Amino acid sequence: MKNEVTVYCPATISNVGPGFDLLGFALEEPGDEITLRRNDTCTLRLYDESGAGLPLDPKKNVAAIAAAALLEDSGITDGFDIIFKKKIRPGSGLGSSAASAVAAVVGINELLPENHETAALFPYAMEGEVAASGSFHADNVAPALLGGFILIRSYNPVDIKHIPYPDDLYCAVVHPDLDFKTYEGRKILPKNVPLTDAIAQAGNLAGLIAGLTTSDHGLIGRSVIDHFAEPLRTKKLPHFNELKENTLKNGALGTGLSGSGPSIFSLCRSSEIAASVAHIMMEHFTLNSITSRTYVSRVSEAGCRITG
Amino acid sequence: MKNEVTVYCPATISNVGPGFDLLGFALEEPGDEITLRRNDTCTLRLYDESGAGLPLDPKKNVAAIAAAALLEDSGITDGFDIIFKKKIRPGSGLGSSAASAVAAVVGINELLPENHETAALFPYAMEGEVAASGSFHADNVAPALLGGFILIRSYNPVDIKHIPYPDDLYCAVVHPDLDFKTYEGRKILPKNVPLTDAIAQAGNLAGLIAGLTTSDHGLIGRSVIDHFAEPLRTKKLPHFNELKENTLKNGALGTGLSGSGPSIFSLCRSSEIAASVAHIMMEHFTLNSITSRTYVSRVSEAGCRITG
Repeated sequence: MKNEVTVYCPATISNVGPGFDLLGFALEEPGDEITLRRNDTCTLRLYDESGAGLPLDPKKNVAAIAAAALLEDSGITDGFDIIFKKKIRPGSGLGSSAASAVAAVVGINELLPENHETAALFPYAMEGEVAASGSFHADNVAPALLGGFILIRSYNPVDIKHIPYPDDLYCAVVHPDLDFKTYEGRKILPKNVPLTDAIAQAGNLAGLIAGLTTSDHGLIGRSVIDHFAEPLRTKKLPHFNELKENTLKNGALGTGLSGSGPSIFSLCRSSEIAASVAHIMMEHFTLNSITSRTYVSRVSEAGCRITG
Repeated sequence: MKNEVTVYCPATISNVGPGFDLLGFALEEPGDEITLRRNDTCTLRLYDESGAGLPLDPKKNVAAIAAAALLEDSGITDGFDIIFKKKIRPGSGLGSSAASAVAAVVGINELLPENHETAALFPYAMEGEVAASGSFHADNVAPALLGGFILIRSYNPVDIKHIPYPDDLYCAVVHPDLDFKTYEGRKILPKNVPLTDAIAQAGNLAGLIAGLTTSDHGLIGRSVIDHFAEPLRTKKLPHFNELKENTLKNGALGTGLSGSGPSIFSLCRSSEIAASVAHIMMEHFTLNSITSRTYVSRVSEAGCRITG
């Protein structure tokens, strides 16, 4: 039985276009590194080596909540140190809390006398995510755990499907330095939507799935439209529609808000296009006096994994 | 230039599960036969050889409206006889009006000095369908014209996608003798729906598309759920939920209302299962003192076609 393990967990794009609460995918980077080490205290001790300002009280820390749930269900009373080297910034809309929760349960699982199957770790990671976001949405946790493009067809019961996608799919991401809170992003959503919007949203999500599975890049692009959350959540982003237009003019297939923002993603057909789109994104925020950082990454088949 | 042509156009299942207004597919049978013959009157003359009670005034007949639209746009003033041998009963929810409109434009197109591409006939067939149903929905017309499983991702602009599906997909259909009107079926729909229902509907349609394109029969079945129209429209069908349960227990992957009803379809994994499910469907209505007819058909790759 191992006493120490290091885990890498990728950032994830959730609410992909029309896939509000339903569709997410894994990036290659950025990603978090978490080391788990058995200690002799019977408690979880947390160390934030990344200076990300994480809560260090195990009852308030996403990763510790998820780890504790898995340990309790496995009847393990050992203590563990959890050492965070986070590169996914909390509040970025890139699945930071999901990455912490997933990395913790994947790492703890590796240190258990009997390992669970990866998919069986999902509910424990979700316990952490729910504590962080205040809502039961799995479109960050599922791709962070399993990699690839993941559809959550249903939440009751949870029904998860890997969606095949073209090999040449890259993602440009910009994370502007603006303060967005996931739970506030939910509060502004309406309880009811026009039937016409609901039909349009379903049509676009169906189009996106059809485009991904049949490598129809044009259809993928035309389908990245969100009628529910994006129009409300992007009001705080300066000239969002202009930025979106600009990315599309420069070769992006489709552009949307990542999670509840403030990050924005563009799906692109090559790393070169993604790099050029990322540059345009950063320039847009610079012109609006907002600092930002960008990432260019292939859509990643791999989710969270043991690295040491 | 030909003077006469005979056309076969298949019935279609629309509103497939969660695909309200968005997803339809073609059957092999039943189907309509329409013969078009050039006459020397410069008018459209209609003959109903099937005794289906079709309106014979060209301004009130779906097929004639569609044919006239195509002729006008093509600058043709010739007259034609349109002779109907319909097997798809009007008001069945199996795309009877769409089949008439599609057959008429496909036939007229064959008799034009310069033929249009099949896809270019879509708007003319839609003119007939709109006149018949009072709404612009394409999930009967598109599969009737093009065959296969068809997603209409968007109506503005119209964006149509062929969805690949497993070879072994069969359909059982029952058409009970109950009077349902398409336009009444629309009137009972709400203008707004709960956001949670809209998300569930989108998730199921995405699941259905993913199931079809990846030949995941279980996922196809789990995704055939409609939150919008079916719960309201099936109130007039005796013990609909019991019938649905019964089909699922007997091997159907998924069961739902076809179009705005009263016909009901089950997707099945073989012709044997579909035949047994069709039998169960007919028995259900017999027990409720309602006569019905059933059809068993493969999901058809072929749409409307010239047969003579």
